[in-house]
Parts: sequence; structure tokens; C-alpha cells
Amino acid sequence: MESRTEISSLGEFGLIEHLTKNIELQNASSIVGVGDDAAVIDHFGKQTVITTDLLIEGVHFDLAYTPLKHLGYKSVIVNISDIYAMNALPTQITLSLGISNRFSLEAIDEFYEGVYAACEKYAVDLIGGDTASSQKGFIISVTAIGEVSPDRFVKRSTARKGDLICCSGDLGGAYLGLVFLEREKKIFLESPQVKPDLEDQKYVIGRLLKPEARKDIIDFLGDSEITPTSMMDISDGLSSEILHICRQSELGCVIYEEKIPISEETRNAAFQFELDPTACALSGGEDYELLFTMSQNDHEKLLLNEQISVIGFMTEPEKGQKIITKGGNTFDITAQGWNAFR
Amino acid sequence: MESRTEISSLGEFGLIEHLTKNIELQNASSIVGVGDDAAVIDHFGKQTVITTDLLIEGVHFDLAYTPLKHLGYKSVIVNISDIYAMNALPTQITLSLGISNRFSLEAIDEFYEGVYAACEKYAVDLIGGDTASSQKGFIISVTAIGEVSPDRFVKRSTARKGDLICCSGDLGGAYLGLVFLEREKKIFLESPQVKPDLEDQKYVIGRLLKPEARKDIIDFLGDSEITPTSMMDISDGLSSEILHICRQSELGCVIYEEKIPISEETRNAAFQFELDPTACALSGGEDYELLFTMSQNDHEKLLLNEQISVIGFMTEPEKGQKIITKGGNTFDITAQGWNAFR
Repeated sequence: MESRTEISSLGEFGLIEHLTKNIELQNASSIVGVGDDAAVIDHFGKQTVITTDLLIEGVHFDLAYTPLKHLGYKSVIVNISDIYAMNALPTQITLSLGISNRFSLEAIDEFYEGVYAACEKYAVDLIGGDTASSQKGFIISVTAIGEVSPDRFVKRSTARKGDLICCSGDLGGAYLGLVFLEREKKIFLESPQVKPDLEDQKYVIGRLLKPEARKDIIDFLGDSEITPTSMMDISDGLSSEILHICRQSELGCVIYEEKIPISEETRNAAFQFELDPTACALSGGEDYELLFTMSQNDHEKLLLNEQISVIGFMTEPEKGQKIITKGGNTFDITAQGWNAFR
Repeated sequence: MESRTEISSLGEFGLIEHLTKNIELQNASSIVGVGDDAAVIDHFGKQTVITTDLLIEGVHFDLAYTPLKHLGYKSVIVNISDIYAMNALPTQITLSLGISNRFSLEAIDEFYEGVYAACEKYAVDLIGGDTASSQKGFIISVTAIGEVSPDRFVKRSTARKGDLICCSGDLGGAYLGLVFLEREKKIFLESPQVKPDLEDQKYVIGRLLKPEARKDIIDFLGDSEITPTSMMDISDGLSSEILHICRQSELGCVIYEEKIPISEETRNAAFQFELDPTACALSGGEDYELLFTMSQNDHEKLLLNEQISVIGFMTEPEKGQKIITKGGNTFDITAQGWNAFR
């Protein structure tokens, strides 16, 4: 039997000490970490980039099928993905948790294992936070801090007419992972003896439960001397994000359905669930890929990186936001992309 | 009748736009504010200080007697108080909210009124955040960012033997405000027709519901060229905080009961509730005053500021952490200070 340690047996300061005692700061910019009123960082000569996310049980995640270690990992990833999306490098995070008494210390340790795994992989320091008891549900608030050379950050509002629209990795997988796990949960609740076969859907489940942040793309863009003209990460689905860039840059766009990167595994999963893979990519969300625009002059530099797809281009605002389907039809892009196809 | 606008009628992006559209950035260091993947700040030549707090309804606040505007104000104050406690100046905050559907847009507006009032008073910019729906209860996560000249921050761990222990303002009031409001809530639930007389307890209620951060003390210390050797804010009660400084500085201390600053209003309230005012100051918490140590050589400089009390001094660690009562008895300071008096 697994042991269960009540968090109340440690108290708040005991818990913080337990969770943070092995931290070794990796970044020279981390001057003061956990254990004081505040942390101190020194991005001397650089600008500091800050983002924050609040994740609430039952709204953003379902512990019925989300291992706590994966949840800890993902909580870090979704935040540092926003830092990369500014063309910056993440250097520190703070982490606050609201914990209900149904959680044991062992459960919280598992969550932190995932947090520390992500911190190690992306060379980010955990420098502060807060722990509180919650009356109901698990609450996670992460703030990520990064650095960027002065004025090298990339906003959403600075795309230019004629720029290429590019997208990293492939889209729609995380959404299909969610559809699959929601179905399995329903089956399990009805017939607990049925064991789900997760092997078939390993790719899409992995896309949902263990996303990565695209540091490699930011590194590639830097090495290739490509400065995106605008950039953001894809957390809400391609449609919603491209509309943000168009609105904030006051431009139109055209994207081509056939250019939207969708993996074979995602297509197969969509087929099984009778869903349109393009709709999943446009509206699914949670893929944490990067969406960016860049000058057409840099097009050749992309040829070396098969992780980047050119999916369209920016137009004058009067032309609106359009998607051209494989069949050659043109539709307006809407925040829920599949509506255009109904 | 007050109007009620459902938040769902705006959607997440509509809500963010509504809440943040009037923001005018006040700090030159706020380069990019709300509306992108992340905010950008430029503390060029300064170090950046970060702190975060998670406030959960039913755990940290009770909306039965906490006006939302006050709650918004206090959410900012408790965080920037931590920045001041590092001897730094707060410059930005991020704010994330988890909102259940029992909240109307008007209620959230009221909360933000308090947030913006605090931001304006302390010249802090709101530069980012997240809004989420919560299944139950109101959840507030604030991260505050500040700046300090290189290596001028003040930690908890650097007090020295012989240093004076100083405390700003007065203590115990917020706790008595809480005791009073909890009693009134109980009376109201039993007999809704009884109207509480708040006037008598105005001071202690104000200490609880509308605390201020002690910017004035930080300014005074700077102007007087006093560099505290250690500092923190008093959020959990004087006993708990002094023990943090002793533990992290590896020292003992002596404090004098008669030197602990307690206002007349707090003494009167304690008397009414048959509580020991000293116990309220030692263990009450939420006063958000500053506790700091400094060299005895700077003692004279304090004479000009009646908002600062010298309450004791640091000793070698072997001497332990002691309080000397008005009657001349010596007790160990414990995290729940009143235990020493039982």
C-alpha cells in the first residue's frame, strides 16, 4: 500500500521547506530564490518578460485522467511557451498552489516532480510562490519570467502586409487526445471493468498530457537570423490565434487548408471519432505550437527546418481573414473555425 | 435595482478588454502591458524583485463582510508589501482571477476599482494576467514585480548580533477587526434584523479590510540613509515573523512586551473581546507593517519618525528567542505567541 502523509502534519512552512529544499538555482540571473518576501532577479542589460496562468481543477484539467506529474510538467510548459512566444528565453517561474485536504503529501510530491522535470529541461529556476489550502479542487497559478535583448521581443501587433504566416509542429493532436480521454472516462464510469487501449492513441494523448514548449524553434529562428514580425503560441486553436494577430496588427490574411500541418496519428484519430482533422487544428487548442509571421525574404532560410510550415500570408485589412479549402472554396475564419465548414 | 450583466455575455476576451481598456502605464519600465503572450519590463541597471500570493474565498477572505472593492485593493497591497519588505519599489503587477458564475460583471468591476485604486496610489502598472471560470468560489492570484538598485535588496537572513529590532505602525488591529466582523456575521445569521454598529470599531475594521503598504517607511529609511540589516513584512503576526528572521539569520533575540506598538483603538477592542492585546499583536497577523533590524549606530536617526518603534535587539543564537513581559518575566517566543502567556 502506498503511504499517505497528511499535509497538515507539516504545516505551511514545513510543506514549503519540503518541496523546495533541493532547488539548485541554474541561472546566474536568479539572485534570491525561495524563502524570502520576494525573489530577486538580475536581467542586467536585458528586458524582463512576464506571463501568468491560472489552472483550475474541473475547468482546465480533469484529475480522472491527468497524472499529477504530467500536470506539474504542463503547468510550467504552458507558461514558458508564452515566454518563447515573445521571442524571449524563460529563466524563472513562481508557483502557487491551492490544495484541498484530499491531497496527500505524496500527491503533491508527484506534481512537483513534473514541475522540476520541466524546470530542468528548460533550464528555468523555481524562485518563489505561495501555498494555500483550498476548500474545493486543486488550483495552480504559475508566473513565468524570461529575458530578451532590448527591444528584440516580438508582439502580436506588428505583422506586415505580405508577410508569410508560419506554424511550428503539427496541430489538432491535443484536442483529439482530450476527445479520446473524455470518451474513455465515460466508458470507465459506465463499465469500470473495461480497460482502455491507450497504445493506439499514444501520440494524441501525449500531445494533450505532455506538451513541450518550442524552444527549438526560437533557437532556430535566432541561429538563422530570422526575426518574426509577429508571434504567439497556439493555446486556443489556430483560428482564434490568427484572428488575434490580424486584429492586433490591423490586417487580413489568407491561409490554405492543405498547408495546415496535421500528423498522421491525428488524422487517424480524427477519422475514428468522425471529426474533421482541419476543424480540430483550427479550433482544438492546447497544442502549444508557435504561430508567427515573417518577411517573404526569409523564406529560403526555412527550408532547413521541417518543423516549420508556411500556411498562408497577411493581406490588407479590407480582404478579411480567409481560409481556402482543399476544394478551392474560400471561407471566413471564425473564432470557432469549424463553423465555417458547417 | 442594480443591473446585472452576465460575464458569459462578454466571453473571456471581451471581459479582459472591458477590464483593461482604460489602463495607462505609469512606469517607464513597463514596455509591453496587457494584450500579448507576456508583458515586457525594462529595469535596466536595476534588479527585479518578484513575489506572488494566492487568495481563495472561504480561506483568505469572507465575502459576507468584505466589500469587493476593498478586496481588490487589499489583493494588491499584500503583494506590494512584500516588495517593500525587500527594500525595493513595486512597479508592476499581474492579476489572475478565477470567477464563478454567481459573479456579475458589475461585481468584477467593483473588484477592479479597488485594484486600480491601489495601483494608482502606489504607482504600479497592471501589465498582465489571466481570467478563468471557477467551479466554486472566487480565486485571486497576484504577482508583484519591483525594482531595486543592484544588491540593495534586504533579506531576512542577514540580521547581525546586537542589531535593533524595529517595527512600523501598530500591531494587532487587523486581527481584532476580524474577530469583530466574525462576531457580527454570526449575530446577523442568527438575527438578521440587528444592525451592527461599526463606528466604534472603525479603526480595527479598517486595519483588516483596507491595509496599506508601508512605502513611507521605505522612503524614510532611504532618505535617512538607514540600510536595514534584515527586513520582512508582518503578515502572520509578530512572533512568527521574528522567528523567521532569527532562524534565517541564525540568531536569538529579545523583545520587550511594553515596546510592542499597539494603538488605543486596538487596546479598547481587545478589552471588549476579553483578549490580551499583546497576544493579538504577536499572533494576529494581516497588519502588513514592516519588521526590520538595523545597526545600533543608526538609532538616533529614528527619533524623527514616530511611526517606527524599537522593540528589542538580536542576540547570539544560544540565548534563544525571548520576550520580556511588562511584569519582568521572560518567555520563549513561539509561532503562536499567546501560548507563552497561557
